[in-house]
Amino acid sequence: MSSTAGQVIKCKAAVAWEAGKPLVIEEVEVAPPQANEVRVKILFTSLCHTDVYFWEAKGQTPLFPRIFGHEAGGIVESVGEGVTDLKLGDHVLPVFTGECKECRHCKSEESNMCDLLRINTDRGVMLNDGKTRFSINGKPIYHFVGTSTFSEYTVIHVGCLAKINPAAPLDKVCVLSCGISTGLGATLNVAKPKKGQSVAVFGLGAVGLAAAEGARIAGASRIIGVDLNPARFEEAKKFGVTEFVNPKDHDKPVQEVLAEMTDGGVDRAVECTGSIQAMISAFECVHDGWGVAVLVGVPSKDDAFKTHPMNLLNERTLKGTFFGNYKPRTDIPGVVEKYMNKELELEKFITHSVPFSEINKAFDLMLHGKSIRCIITMGA
Amino acid sequence: MSSTAGQVIKCKAAVAWEAGKPLVIEEVEVAPPQANEVRVKILFTSLCHTDVYFWEAKGQTPLFPRIFGHEAGGIVESVGEGVTDLKLGDHVLPVFTGECKECRHCKSEESNMCDLLRINTDRGVMLNDGKTRFSINGKPIYHFVGTSTFSEYTVIHVGCLAKINPAAPLDKVCVLSCGISTGLGATLNVAKPKKGQSVAVFGLGAVGLAAAEGARIAGASRIIGVDLNPARFEEAKKFGVTEFVNPKDHDKPVQEVLAEMTDGGVDRAVECTGSIQAMISAFECVHDGWGVAVLVGVPSKDDAFKTHPMNLLNERTLKGTFFGNYKPRTDIPGVVEKYMNKELELEKFITHSVPFSEINKAFDLMLHGKSIRCIITMGA
Repeated sequence: MSSTAGQVIKCKAAVAWEAGKPLVIEEVEVAPPQANEVRVKILFTSLCHTDVYFWEAKGQTPLFPRIFGHEAGGIVESVGEGVTDLKLGDHVLPVFTGECKECRHCKSEESNMCDLLRINTDRGVMLNDGKTRFSINGKPIYHFVGTSTFSEYTVIHVGCLAKINPAAPLDKVCVLSCGISTGLGATLNVAKPKKGQSVAVFGLGAVGLAAAEGARIAGASRIIGVDLNPARFEEAKKFGVTEFVNPKDHDKPVQEVLAEMTDGGVDRAVECTGSIQAMISAFECVHDGWGVAVLVGVPSKDDAFKTHPMNLLNERTLKGTFFGNYKPRTDIPGVVEKYMNKELELEKFITHSVPFSEINKAFDLMLHGKSIRCIITMGA
Repeated sequence: MSSTAGQVIKCKAAVAWEAGKPLVIEEVEVAPPQANEVRVKILFTSLCHTDVYFWEAKGQTPLFPRIFGHEAGGIVESVGEGVTDLKLGDHVLPVFTGECKECRHCKSEESNMCDLLRINTDRGVMLNDGKTRFSINGKPIYHFVGTSTFSEYTVIHVGCLAKINPAAPLDKVCVLSCGISTGLGATLNVAKPKKGQSVAVFGLGAVGLAAAEGARIAGASRIIGVDLNPARFEEAKKFGVTEFVNPKDHDKPVQEVLAEMTDGGVDRAVECTGSIQAMISAFECVHDGWGVAVLVGVPSKDDAFKTHPMNLLNERTLKGTFFGNYKPRTDIPGVVEKYMNKELELEKFITHSVPFSEINKAFDLMLHGKSIRCIITMGA
């Protein structure tokens, strides 16, 4: 047992006091974990668009003060009542969605959308008592998607922690907590291209590049990147992207451009932008008879996916995925192993790093589209 | 070699001279098969909605005089040049769509939409020379979907003939040429329910009942039939349907009714009506995380399939199928074997039978919704 077990820990955290305002490094109190909870010492965290989206709070109910952060790697400091799967010193990746192992989704081989621990961006408290584990002078500070990794210590439900190989470097594998696994799994688990097939990837941000990395690992013969920003094309080559299409360069719909390039359509398409038009194009660009399109990007509330039903009847498949269909506890340790055995390359996703004290720089880099992933080193 | 090989055969055929007018039994001349063609003696044929639809010619360019018919069983009379897969005396089922075994679709494990022999309802001639093999006093009579089985002899491309077990009774297995295989394959090959799962079937005509039969064979625990016509419910029980929902009985959308009946949604849905609203309901009634909806029914030209993309992102799958994803030559012989080993029950689909001379009765029965399948005995 650690010397701090059962005690309140005082540590540094980057607190978002207001929407869109720079985070402030504060000393916070972190309460001990309750039933089915684990207190984790975060060593590295990275920044994902979802943090920025909810920090900006332009489209949702704001919830402040809050500690953001959900891509990270850490070490178990102590565990609450009933936690038997994890112990002091275990290396873990927090995940923004969980796996209770008891519900219909967890018991289904096909789903990772746990009923109990499915992502909830509105909730800022822990499930066990409906309260926060963070406070400053008694004032509660809200959690974010059950992870809040922009803190040296955080409390997380055991169902949202993947126990990984302790030999894995946490400053690299921390990026597997969210975006990279999402794109990678969309290709490997859902689109499932066969060796030699063609894959189109819509959107060449971190998730799209991870989808391309999945296609590279699967042995795709052609990986066609589609993006409105030509600046992304050069970087994308490192991820196996072989050809580039900018919809702005063509008068006809991009699905027609892709069909002409590929004798009738690509074998697989993965949509990573969230734009409804890109979703429709990604579906309509796959080949009849066997084409599979996978939607990853999160759409706007009022969007409607619309296509002629004959596009479906001609034996196309349309699927959506959430977190790449990975079950956080069951599957993510295996993704870490893919990195350890050099099948999966993570270094190329990590374009920047900053000390925790300069976490706002990571926000600036992402807002200006300069970083794929920026690693934030805690305690620095 | 048969004594008629290489000769024009005179025989009886039911000719549609005009749209919607009763067929007339005429003596027709049937030319010998050309390269890659086979002349088949039809013993039994059945009637499918598609025959009626094109005979009524309300929605397409009319092509008359024409010999309809595409569900049938027969015996090879003679073969044309280059035909090595079939010989005199082989038992065959004609299929309205073909398998050339050479194109990308035929070489793909996933597709049955042959580039060369894919269904073509507008073409009334043979591929080899662009002419008909049927004539009356020199006047050409058009073919229908390459099969034209309402004739005692017909000429068919070898790629549109499934060679089957000669012990199989042709008066039963003839129904596997089209509708029954379409529904059965939609469930077994595409929706693929697991043992114990729930399946909703939209539309309880022959195709929908075959989809239900597939669900029964797969060991579905609940098979929920959805139809606007309550008269179909009693019959459907024979096909394993356990519960019935008539959308007219409810104020809320039927997908919500089904979700309430099944704790969040059915595991699989198969849409066999062609109504765009039923297609949307069939998709939206499947459970998030693992639900699969399969579209079978053919939509109208101007329909749009429309849904909120979150319905997809929540890990639902939407697929379409054509002829139940069966490859005609490769797979249909195996479906016949399912009947021979009593896994698949065909008798219950056959509600009526008439001699060839009374073929118009089969049309009346179908137009009045009285038959599932009516077997027409040739030479009678």
